[in-house]
Amino acid sequence: MQRMKPLYSRDSQNQSSHIRIGDVLIGGEEVIVIAGPCAIESESQMRACAQAAKQFGARILRGGAYKPRGNPYTFEGLGEEGLKILKKISDEVGLPSVTEILDARDIDLIDQYTDAFQVGARNMQNFTLLKELGKRKKPVLLKRGMAATIHDLLLAAEHILSQGNPNVILCERGIRTFEHETRNTLSLSAIPLVKELSHLPIIVDPSHATGKHALTESMSKAAIAAGADGVMIDIHTNPEDALCDGEQTLRPEDFQTLMISARKVATAVDRFIA
Amino acid sequence: MQRMKPLYSRDSQNQSSHIRIGDVLIGGEEVIVIAGPCAIESESQMRACAQAAKQFGARILRGGAYKPRGNPYTFEGLGEEGLKILKKISDEVGLPSVTEILDARDIDLIDQYTDAFQVGARNMQNFTLLKELGKRKKPVLLKRGMAATIHDLLLAAEHILSQGNPNVILCERGIRTFEHETRNTLSLSAIPLVKELSHLPIIVDPSHATGKHALTESMSKAAIAAGADGVMIDIHTNPEDALCDGEQTLRPEDFQTLMISARKVATAVDRFIA
Amino acid sequence: MQRMKPLYSRDSQNQSSHIRIGDVLIGGEEVIVIAGPCAIESESQMRACAQAAKQFGARILRGGAYKPRGNPYTFEGLGEEGLKILKKISDEVGLPSVTEILDARDIDLIDQYTDAFQVGARNMQNFTLLKELGKRKKPVLLKRGMAATIHDLLLAAEHILSQGNPNVILCERGIRTFEHETRNTLSLSAIPLVKELSHLPIIVDPSHATGKHALTESMSKAAIAAGADGVMIDIHTNPEDALCDGEQTLRPEDFQTLMISARKVATAVDRFIA
Amino acid sequence: MQRMKPLYSRDSQNQSSHIRIGDVLIGGEEVIVIAGPCAIESESQMRACAQAAKQFGARILRGGAYKPRGNPYTFEGLGEEGLKILKKISDEVGLPSVTEILDARDIDLIDQYTDAFQVGARNMQNFTLLKELGKRKKPVLLKRGMAATIHDLLLAAEHILSQGNPNVILCERGIRTFEHETRNTLSLSAIPLVKELSHLPIIVDPSHATGKHALTESMSKAAIAAGADGVMIDIHTNPEDALCDGEQTLRPEDFQTLMISARKVATAVDRFIA
Repeated sequence: MQRMKPLYSRDSQNQSSHIRIGDVLIGGEEVIVIAGPCAIESESQMRACAQAAKQFGARILRGGAYKPRGNPYTFEGLGEEGLKILKKISDEVGLPSVTEILDARDIDLIDQYTDAFQVGARNMQNFTLLKELGKRKKPVLLKRGMAATIHDLLLAAEHILSQGNPNVILCERGIRTFEHETRNTLSLSAIPLVKELSHLPIIVDPSHATGKHALTESMSKAAIAAGADGVMIDIHTNPEDALCDGEQTLRPEDFQTLMISARKVATAVDRFIA
Repeated sequence: MQRMKPLYSRDSQNQSSHIRIGDVLIGGEEVIVIAGPCAIESESQMRACAQAAKQFGARILRGGAYKPRGNPYTFEGLGEEGLKILKKISDEVGLPSVTEILDARDIDLIDQYTDAFQVGARNMQNFTLLKELGKRKKPVLLKRGMAATIHDLLLAAEHILSQGNPNVILCERGIRTFEHETRNTLSLSAIPLVKELSHLPIIVDPSHATGKHALTESMSKAAIAAGADGVMIDIHTNPEDALCDGEQTLRPEDFQTLMISARKVATAVDRFIA
Repeated sequence: MQRMKPLYSRDSQNQSSHIRIGDVLIGGEEVIVIAGPCAIESESQMRACAQAAKQFGARILRGGAYKPRGNPYTFEGLGEEGLKILKKISDEVGLPSVTEILDARDIDLIDQYTDAFQVGARNMQNFTLLKELGKRKKPVLLKRGMAATIHDLLLAAEHILSQGNPNVILCERGIRTFEHETRNTLSLSAIPLVKELSHLPIIVDPSHATGKHALTESMSKAAIAAGADGVMIDIHTNPEDALCDGEQTLRPEDFQTLMISARKVATAVDRFIA
Repeated sequence: MQRMKPLYSRDSQNQSSHIRIGDVLIGGEEVIVIAGPCAIESESQMRACAQAAKQFGARILRGGAYKPRGNPYTFEGLGEEGLKILKKISDEVGLPSVTEILDARDIDLIDQYTDAFQVGARNMQNFTLLKELGKRKKPVLLKRGMAATIHDLLLAAEHILSQGNPNVILCERGIRTFEHETRNTLSLSAIPLVKELSHLPIIVDPSHATGKHALTESMSKAAIAAGADGVMIDIHTNPEDALCDGEQTLRPEDFQTLMISARKVATAVDRFIA
């Protein structure tokens, strides 16, 4: 039953995969910036965030309607109402979207409203969810678990690939270590390691990795310098009022600054940001 | 929306919870031994394991019908066929059973065949699964995630408790650290910490924590000395042929030795093993 | 230059080593309790601690004259004055002593005042110190570093053994992990692992491992149940006034309680505490 | 005894420190590249490495005469003979040098031959060594310990600063985590964190952090993009014959490639490499 050459591996496919979310190609020369609020809170909040994202160069929108929260008494997202807002705003501003899925039972519902499924760190080894997503063709943004090795991440991707869905984008978002000055420890060596072992694209989420907005810009630049195919950034027009993870969230003007400096780094490594 | 006194806490309920799996009480003076194969492979294998478990003093049977496997090309359990075997053998030998659930969609099915649901380390933060289990009354054995702090574990329990199911048993099974001589690092200080913070019972799984059968006996004794309400042990009549985790699995004769020495330690800490 | 059979290994010496500190044998059937204050503060404090240690069954005194402190502006020990107190009280109560050494230049000085050198976690890979200690015959209590694997610990011991000093006692005192509810994560599986790989004795320091006095008793019992050759306990007659690590320190009456219950566990694993 | 404002902090000195090794300034606009062999093996080897380092733009030479080795039976450096070679070649090629010190007793000796002392990860909390180095004025390159938080690293620096030596350069070189695909986990968020908390310069050692030469270039670029004041690179003319850490060592031609691409990234973040 064992495969000699896992589907994720360069042995199985030497050429790097290019994966399409809406009309945006991930894994090519362009470094893709995904931006938006951690959680969708209202139509006006999502619109303001999306307009800022679009204005400064993001190519894909993010926004959570289902939020996995350690504490059961905190805001867990707007659910389907949030999905509807996401779809409406995505159409309005003309950017494709990605949103998190927590439960295999929600696939059909979420499928109607988004261009890519996100599997979060806590569900990286929710194998029944991975397999169901493997039966679709819609791209899956698979985040590294907090205790997952690179090998574990690639094997999690294999659960999707082996069901027939080749459209997997990996995401480094930090691992759990003894250092608590940041929420997690962003491991950027994951990028060249994944590139060596796999043809799948890999992006980086510095917002969730560090949990600190002051580190987002420098870690975005570092990720791009290390070869990441994209970065995913939490932005909010009023971070101090955000219902979720405000501390790690950039204001539009800081996002603009990030984009300007990220573009220079992308150019320095022979890539570009639109 | 925040509770001042979480349901898991001693502030909310000072008296230690006693939780019943079948006719077996967990959290009282008796130290409960759960034993059985990692995975159910066949009726004859399950019967042989169950008879050995019963003979040497185990009070509850374990056996997996759905196995979460990092590698998608390895044995993933017999599914419903396995559940039927588990139920049949459980009735035959007269021991209640616990088995792992991976997917909220399987609750009704598994509910028919077992006396307690097990949520594995990889699903400790699969909050939709936890919430569904919280709507039942059947006990849930909740294993600590590999990157979960004690606080994370207690909050995961809160997801179940807050839905109305008070029957949660916690399980320490090791956390992921830089030490790879053992599969995970068993953290026995979790036991007194949980006892201080919570009224919920806590057991220990030395088999999965260490991944080495040679360490199972000493870690079982240590767990009991530290105050664990039970231990869960992988046993198999032919470990070398086990389809899953043979390296960490005890033969019946070694399980017998473990039980003899574990009884002495239980007595030394003013508890008992039947 | 590589040895096929490291001196620490069972391949090199199959029989377990018995190592003498003063007249106390470590590694035999007796489980040795080492107790005393974290830091020597005054003659009267050391005397009170030593009398309590002796009264309730400790066989060796501990007490630091040189304290490695992360923060350079905190109490760093009394130095030679502390050593003199240690020696005086050790003679008075009739218990041999162990004290920490930080610097190879202090070997001759400390040698006059103590029965064993302790090398702390932060110096486990201070190889020049290890080698100098290897040129003596006085026993060395070698603590596991916070980032050291079992293999690293054994190799650190080899630095001492290879210089001609066979008298090394290992000490598990926790490793650094993401869990910060305790200061470090005590890894009791280190005990059977070391016993399998090496003939050297191993003891456990639950006080420094957990940093919490409320966990000391249960972790001492667990260590003994797991096969430890001894435990090392911080005690103080006034923990709230201790100049160092008061939070992890037991009062004499709690130490007495610990000793009573530890004795029962020792008996349960066919060993004894005097 | 506690200082309200540690000497390392921005509260104590707001302006970033510029520290001179020989005639090279660290902490200014220039990103400094330090290069050389892990261990000095011979005069011809050191000369070849130094010439390559110089040719492609390194500004400081590295080379170890005293190597801390986990295994006591491996090559531990040439000692004083190595220092003499280092000094001779440093003068020949006209680059200042840095070399590791393991023992406070060697300060006077090493002081004659090098322009900066390096304190390795294993000695980051060898406080007696730090204090002795604090009594000199020669710069100290202080590497982060494998289990050290950022705060621990800054407090270790404080041990040097508080003795009167303001010339401390910090070095991120990876921390120990469960991920063993790389030797350690390089934590580049350490750079902006240190910059926020301290005026001290910080460089990065991607060679020792990752243990893999294939990752050195991408991690060097990432470090520079993240704001590092320099990078330290292992190079060797014959990595396969290196007596120490050959796997992580670049050939001269790969070092040249690294320098070309690192220069572009430095420019992109408004700095430069000479």
